[in-house]
Amino acid sequence: MLEEMKNRRTIRQYQEKMISEEKLTNLLEIACRASTMGNMQLYSIVVTRDAEMKEKLAPAHFNQPMVRTAPVVLTFCADFNRAVKWCEQREADPGYDNFQSFIAAATDALLVAQSFCNAAEAAGLGICYLGTTTYNAQPIIDTLRLPELVVPVTTVTVGYPAESPEQVERLPLTGVVHYESYEPNTRERIDCVYAEKENLAANIRFVEENNKKTLAQVFTDVRYTRKNNEFFSDAFLKVLENQGFLKGKLNF
Amino acid sequence: MLEEMKNRRTIRQYQEKMISEEKLTNLLEIACRASTMGNMQLYSIVVTRDAEMKEKLAPAHFNQPMVRTAPVVLTFCADFNRAVKWCEQREADPGYDNFQSFIAAATDALLVAQSFCNAAEAAGLGICYLGTTTYNAQPIIDTLRLPELVVPVTTVTVGYPAESPEQVERLPLTGVVHYESYEPNTRERIDCVYAEKENLAANIRFVEENNKKTLAQVFTDVRYTRKNNEFFSDAFLKVLENQGFLKGKLNF
Repeated sequence: MLEEMKNRRTIRQYQEKMISEEKLTNLLEIACRASTMGNMQLYSIVVTRDAEMKEKLAPAHFNQPMVRTAPVVLTFCADFNRAVKWCEQREADPGYDNFQSFIAAATDALLVAQSFCNAAEAAGLGICYLGTTTYNAQPIIDTLRLPELVVPVTTVTVGYPAESPEQVERLPLTGVVHYESYEPNTRERIDCVYAEKENLAANIRFVEENNKKTLAQVFTDVRYTRKNNEFFSDAFLKVLENQGFLKGKLNF
Repeated sequence: MLEEMKNRRTIRQYQEKMISEEKLTNLLEIACRASTMGNMQLYSIVVTRDAEMKEKLAPAHFNQPMVRTAPVVLTFCADFNRAVKWCEQREADPGYDNFQSFIAAATDALLVAQSFCNAAEAAGLGICYLGTTTYNAQPIIDTLRLPELVVPVTTVTVGYPAESPEQVERLPLTGVVHYESYEPNTRERIDCVYAEKENLAANIRFVEENNKKTLAQVFTDVRYTRKNNEFFSDAFLKVLENQGFLKGKLNF
């Protein structure tokens, strides 16, 4: 398993082959053994296999083709709705309509998502995360009919791989691991940590294709712009407020 | 591996045996293969092995004994500091001082944390998550000297197991998995989903020990109270603002 995890790649092209009900259920059972706050399991997983539902979800994910072509799409949601309903039916007064409760539930949802992915890959499947989930949470909420205190935090497409891409680079471990206290990102440290990444042929080509001077500019000017980040920040804060996790805390 | 994941338990008691440098590095390398937004690796992992540093961290985790007794404590942080410094040194204008960027970085940090845990368990180690991290993020920031745009989101204690606890229950899969759209948590559904949990001898005992009428009341009145949740919500929102992820968005 450790070797498999070390050699993993994200898979965006899938065979048409369906994942069997038994296999999917088994992987979901395994994923649900992930750690969870106070064993409350503050998440829900919405399984999308229906073509029409994929069609409805696709625009929220900027029409990334995996949403339509993967046999299974999983939307992982922070969920305090179930726990709160349980409390209300058991003479208990729940106090979970706040930001810390959202963070706890989002954490639970992300841990179960990643355990699902590790298990799925060990079972011969390929996965891809869609970061678009928190950009367009509201249309996803509408499509999947998520009630209050339920917020989608990530989406995973999964299927049998129909490609075997090269493994992409990672920063050297020294760039992301700190011992005892955070080592400041000095000019020298940054140059050292990013050197290999910037000198990769694929990344040099990527800069040229985008008509930019540096790889960093591809991120700031093309892929993850201030304008989009600020727009989608306000949208997601509104979603948290609408779903009941931020009562009266917002200033816009 | 799948069987191991299915049989996993959280481990809170560790042997005194240290984790070798080689083993820890290998597990961290494997963890860093986890999916990450745009391959930006928006996280940092702070390794605590020094007894004095554990002593300083312990109060932030309400003195849970694992912080002092585990050979290794890992604090997983959402980190846009490194990426922003890189942009600034490469004539790129970063727009990552906003909530969506925090969510992206927190997601990255949690996925790498869970991959670390899955890998560590496959390698014979035991882990425990500390949900206290987001309650007391500010003292953790101070102790680990985390700069702006770095926020701790979870902590994992890890070591060789010195206990083999019973596996705790989980809700039936039908309680947490929805097909195509969210199935509302009706009174009947809640009763059905929580029945097994509520009838476990250990949980019945837990209710009695806490002098409560229902298991739900143990959560609302003892373990995760409204008062604490609201207090720690404001504290964490302040941390996000202080670290630069929420400029001018807060209303208190």
